[in-house]
Amino acid sequence: MGDEGISSPGKRTVGTAFWERGTDDVSPGREVNPRVKDIQVSQREALLGQAAQIRHGLRQGSNKPYKELIDICWGDAHSAGMKPISFVRQVLAACIHPELLLHGDRLPADARHRAQRLLGECNGGSVGSYTDTSGLPHVKRSVAEFITRRDGGVRSLPENILICLGSQRALMLVLNLLAQGEGVSQTGVLTPVPTCNTVSMALAEAGVVTVPYQLCEEQRWALQTDELCRVLQAARGHCDPRVLYVANPGNPTGHVQSRESIEEVIRLAAKERLFLLVNEVDQDSVHAEGCEFVSYRKVLFEIGPPFSDMVELVSVHSIARGFMGEGGMRAGYMEILNMDPAVKSWLVDVLMCPDNETPVLGQIALDIMAEPPRPGDSSHATYTEEVRSRRETLIGNVGRVQKVLDALPGVSCQPVMGGNYVFPRLHLPIAAVDQAKSVGVEADLLYCKLLLEEEGLCVGPGCEFGQREGTHHIRLHVMVPTEALDDALGRLKRFHLRFMRAFS
Amino acid sequence: MGDEGISSPGKRTVGTAFWERGTDDVSPGREVNPRVKDIQVSQREALLGQAAQIRHGLRQGSNKPYKELIDICWGDAHSAGMKPISFVRQVLAACIHPELLLHGDRLPADARHRAQRLLGECNGGSVGSYTDTSGLPHVKRSVAEFITRRDGGVRSLPENILICLGSQRALMLVLNLLAQGEGVSQTGVLTPVPTCNTVSMALAEAGVVTVPYQLCEEQRWALQTDELCRVLQAARGHCDPRVLYVANPGNPTGHVQSRESIEEVIRLAAKERLFLLVNEVDQDSVHAEGCEFVSYRKVLFEIGPPFSDMVELVSVHSIARGFMGEGGMRAGYMEILNMDPAVKSWLVDVLMCPDNETPVLGQIALDIMAEPPRPGDSSHATYTEEVRSRRETLIGNVGRVQKVLDALPGVSCQPVMGGNYVFPRLHLPIAAVDQAKSVGVEADLLYCKLLLEEEGLCVGPGCEFGQREGTHHIRLHVMVPTEALDDALGRLKRFHLRFMRAFS
Repeated sequence: MGDEGISSPGKRTVGTAFWERGTDDVSPGREVNPRVKDIQVSQREALLGQAAQIRHGLRQGSNKPYKELIDICWGDAHSAGMKPISFVRQVLAACIHPELLLHGDRLPADARHRAQRLLGECNGGSVGSYTDTSGLPHVKRSVAEFITRRDGGVRSLPENILICLGSQRALMLVLNLLAQGEGVSQTGVLTPVPTCNTVSMALAEAGVVTVPYQLCEEQRWALQTDELCRVLQAARGHCDPRVLYVANPGNPTGHVQSRESIEEVIRLAAKERLFLLVNEVDQDSVHAEGCEFVSYRKVLFEIGPPFSDMVELVSVHSIARGFMGEGGMRAGYMEILNMDPAVKSWLVDVLMCPDNETPVLGQIALDIMAEPPRPGDSSHATYTEEVRSRRETLIGNVGRVQKVLDALPGVSCQPVMGGNYVFPRLHLPIAAVDQAKSVGVEADLLYCKLLLEEEGLCVGPGCEFGQREGTHHIRLHVMVPTEALDDALGRLKRFHLRFMRAFS
Repeated sequence: MGDEGISSPGKRTVGTAFWERGTDDVSPGREVNPRVKDIQVSQREALLGQAAQIRHGLRQGSNKPYKELIDICWGDAHSAGMKPISFVRQVLAACIHPELLLHGDRLPADARHRAQRLLGECNGGSVGSYTDTSGLPHVKRSVAEFITRRDGGVRSLPENILICLGSQRALMLVLNLLAQGEGVSQTGVLTPVPTCNTVSMALAEAGVVTVPYQLCEEQRWALQTDELCRVLQAARGHCDPRVLYVANPGNPTGHVQSRESIEEVIRLAAKERLFLLVNEVDQDSVHAEGCEFVSYRKVLFEIGPPFSDMVELVSVHSIARGFMGEGGMRAGYMEILNMDPAVKSWLVDVLMCPDNETPVLGQIALDIMAEPPRPGDSSHATYTEEVRSRRETLIGNVGRVQKVLDALPGVSCQPVMGGNYVFPRLHLPIAAVDQAKSVGVEADLLYCKLLLEEEGLCVGPGCEFGQREGTHHIRLHVMVPTEALDDALGRLKRFHLRFMRAFS
């Protein structure tokens, strides 16, 4: 086995390529301790279940040293108490109940106008009707214009935009499209370690081979093209590595790629004929000094021909992230560049299945994300202030978390550049690691389970995301109200000191 | 080839089992005229495309004998001009923009209370947060109580309810679950002919073998268990027919099964160990005199043990149909009975993928479908009147359509018992059938294309749904405002008489 460890032998494994694993890893169904297997296949569910039990107990008046459970495990901003953007909700309310448009006093003028315009784009003037499965043409145009503005004029075309049920669904559709072959010719997908756990689920469901590449923790979790070349080389002969998946900003790492790094990746993709699948859902959350989001498509067009006519690129974005955080609305988009027309039309044909249609209200929220109030509009000041305040909260939170972590023994944390997470490394005592082994779980999962039990704080275990063997991490969601975060950090600090003492 | 004709050799074929087809049908990709293939694979898209072009032309002022296009092809009530139920929209508006709750004057008290209660069930009190992937526990309880009430006390349990993105998605999930094997052991799904075209798409996508069974047009499109036995017999040796798909009320046929017929089907399913997959989305639209909707689960429990503990049954329902017609909200549910616990947990695990989560607003609409205003609630009178008026419109429309059709030469129509469609048979002149053949399309598609072009009326061609060879039909969606329907019937009559004259 190489220096990349396998984190969890369940279906969500991202740590190690299957051909580098020992026997245990190849057939976890038969040879792994059933208890471990159960925990590892459903770590998320196990923690969720434990959290639900604790919540239930608290409601029944169970005697705990805390009154409320704090969940900063999953990236759900509204669940954590962040408020929605008013303009989004005003427009949606008017679209859903157009009678509100008759009462001018309750909603800002631009919200009413936007609702009227959007209702005009819906079949039968109702958000209850179906749309084209690839989305309302008007919303596709708004998205294309948003992308064009964002990228300083590099033109995006509505026909390259497909509206879908969020970034995860977009990923699934593209992976299903590209999944083919068996054995040596089976599609391989280069996937970062660590990566968001839902990506691993999508890879498993699509039936493609995961070709893991390590991000470099010591360099703020940078993506290194040398590592890509290395794993590409190693994967050939085992599968057909045809897809390179990248998340920028990274999740859970918070790394933001530089323009140069993106150009290197694109040139490598061109040389090796890799399909680029890029997750850019955290593009609004870049917060480190001197750091900015640059899209893959912008760099691709700046490199120019033949690259810009050749490299197949799909980029996904969603309303669940950034300052909207409207995950429950279920909407996102993908932009498709340079895809073989026959393949693209197959994608549209699959999307054409009514079960893939995006809820109309989600599409409307997406339209607002793409075209927020402009200067001069009646909601512009409120909207700008709401975004500014959320941004301030996020940046402030990242700073607070880093300060607390820096002061804790046995914790190291790379400076975070973007995204909504912090992913510190835990240097756990050997006794803790041994104890975890003896009960058949990863040490960071043990840490998370005890933290949840003892302090009522739910954070994500590093083993859910994949990590180098022998290393341990936790993921903290920081797009939460500051008071909740301060409470969480107090609990984390207390627990951590106790845990380290107990095992040293 | 038997007496069941193949309607379309594309991927949506339902007319004939593959082992009964000629060479052309087995490999349409290679041997069928590409033009025919294209039309047949995408009949729906072709008609949709033609309709979009005509709409665009009309907006540009093109010279047509009609000012507007009328679309009664797809079952989209709001698109056709039906109004949403006020209570649904009021509750949703308050959930999405809780500020509305502060202004008591605009929304009825029960709508405000319901919104408050439902917001209390959402994580973080926001419809923008994620839920359990199988749905909000509160909504699952509401649905279970609704089913229990509907079935006169036959108890439904929340743990058997899974909330999902509409009936089509529910179908896909179950089919994916049951799809297995290859060759003789590949899962076969007994599927009615005719059937809703989206079902055929789901079967194709899931990679199961379609085992078509003919509904008996002469007997109001009844399901005959003899026919089920016949095709079951014939299918064995070609695939493993393990699933029986039934739509009750039927789509596009409008047949409503009697209690006796349902009992026969259940006993057959028990004897032959068939998994029952039942589409009951049109349960609110039963309108023939003396006819009522009886659910499969109710009959199953009335038959009692051992059947009620043994027959695996999944029933699906959705907010897209009935009097709500909220297709754009994307929500439905399935109830799962007697499924092997291991299989059921796999289903929940797949559903656990975040990309299958149902939008929270859709779940809220589902809650209202399950628990509408009660007598004494402030919205009860309005709600009852709105439902009554839609019901009256539907029943009136069915009568009007049947009257017009009965008077047309070359048209016969079975009395419709339920659902939102009428599916008359066209007895087309041989010259018309020959002309259709010469341009490589089914005669009813030719009829629909000309009707759309000449009169601006879009109806569904029978070949999209499957039909006995040599027969032709059209499907008319009748859950539309009466004025629109009258306009549509005038156009249909003019066109039909002209068409029949031209070809006789």
